[in-house]
Amino acid sequence: MGNDELKTERSRVRRNHKIAHYDRREVYDVLDAGFIAHIGYMGKFGIGVTPTCYWREGNYVYWHGSSASGTMRGAAAKDVCVTVTHFDGLVLASSALHHSANYRTAMIFGTPELVTDPVEKARTLAHFIDHLVPGRWQTLRPMTNQELKATAILRLEIKEASVKIRSGNAVDDPEDVPLPIWGGVIPVSETFGKATPDPLKPADLPVPSAVKGYDGRTFSEVIVQRKVKR
Amino acid sequence: MGNDELKTERSRVRRNHKIAHYDRREVYDVLDAGFIAHIGYMGKFGIGVTPTCYWREGNYVYWHGSSASGTMRGAAAKDVCVTVTHFDGLVLASSALHHSANYRTAMIFGTPELVTDPVEKARTLAHFIDHLVPGRWQTLRPMTNQELKATAILRLEIKEASVKIRSGNAVDDPEDVPLPIWGGVIPVSETFGKATPDPLKPADLPVPSAVKGYDGRTFSEVIVQRKVKR
Repeated sequence: MGNDELKTERSRVRRNHKIAHYDRREVYDVLDAGFIAHIGYMGKFGIGVTPTCYWREGNYVYWHGSSASGTMRGAAAKDVCVTVTHFDGLVLASSALHHSANYRTAMIFGTPELVTDPVEKARTLAHFIDHLVPGRWQTLRPMTNQELKATAILRLEIKEASVKIRSGNAVDDPEDVPLPIWGGVIPVSETFGKATPDPLKPADLPVPSAVKGYDGRTFSEVIVQRKVKR
Repeated sequence: MGNDELKTERSRVRRNHKIAHYDRREVYDVLDAGFIAHIGYMGKFGIGVTPTCYWREGNYVYWHGSSASGTMRGAAAKDVCVTVTHFDGLVLASSALHHSANYRTAMIFGTPELVTDPVEKARTLAHFIDHLVPGRWQTLRPMTNQELKATAILRLEIKEASVKIRSGNAVDDPEDVPLPIWGGVIPVSETFGKATPDPLKPADLPVPSAVKGYDGRTFSEVIVQRKVKR
């Protein structure tokens, strides 16, 4: 299952290599199910890891920030690692050593480039907004040229990457299995709640149906629904 | 509110500095509410950002791994950035530019050290296990010396750090406020579900009450409950 197309000396998983994947589609699945990435970069004062909104289009992962941001300008043309993680559960074992976490994580390595063409910038920002809430872009007032200029967008091609997926129960030592110690998984999910309207906005605006549909749903449920729709 | 005790040239927040804090207690609050950190380090092949379980004790953040792990050995005595993020919601504005995310994030900078004393290692691992599920450590079979040796523990003193907290609604441009575009917040939370028992374990073991108590609760609710108990 899967292939090693994204496996390189840099992206190869050294520990727990049995749970590693290097297939593009596996990377896409992890990326498409989330909203926040952790981006590692070498800054002026050392390594920084910054959480940021991201989106995927084709074989690229995108993120954005202010054109005035030193981090954005600094990350272009420099090596970064973009990591997206979904924490899926606490794994309780009979021994401390075999306690674990269930998770899905994608790590993408490489050198991002600035997207500079204004038409391309607007196009991919529309993709981002519609990743947050499908159909939202066309309901907004159009972006101004000044806003487009103020927005810096970076994109990183997905060429060197790994996915690690851990799921299921603990792997106890055989002699510990019969011990009278409860073991199992406490599942964890990222879940949307009921949207609250901005009190400054006109009072009679209906909540968009896509926003209503998020209420009580996990990220996975929302994403699965999108895939079915497409 | 708060003080700047953890503010240094390296930890100072450049963008959005109004939402930045440098108070130890604010860092502790973000750390204590989570389980997974993203650790950035300079590896043999460039920057890596790895998700890993962590815990806090006193003024240190701890994480662990296999003693055979190159990442663990490589991170000791090298600069790292440990980032913990809670994603709290999608913030919908009238214009694309002012869309945002609500979040709490702590970034801690510095050079971690290996914890080598076996007594200290066992003591802090107990703290870790009880951070996952309060009271669990004493229900487990004791760790063996071999297991302690196989476990590498790193700790990083919290001396240079920042916390960023964004909450509430979007800040629309004044002329966009009256536009008939729904705006508001879709809250997001990390939520525990119903624990599932490991089918290999004896069938009649009762689910620990702490584990039962997680069902349907968000991380924040579980952590608030712990603080009240103390």
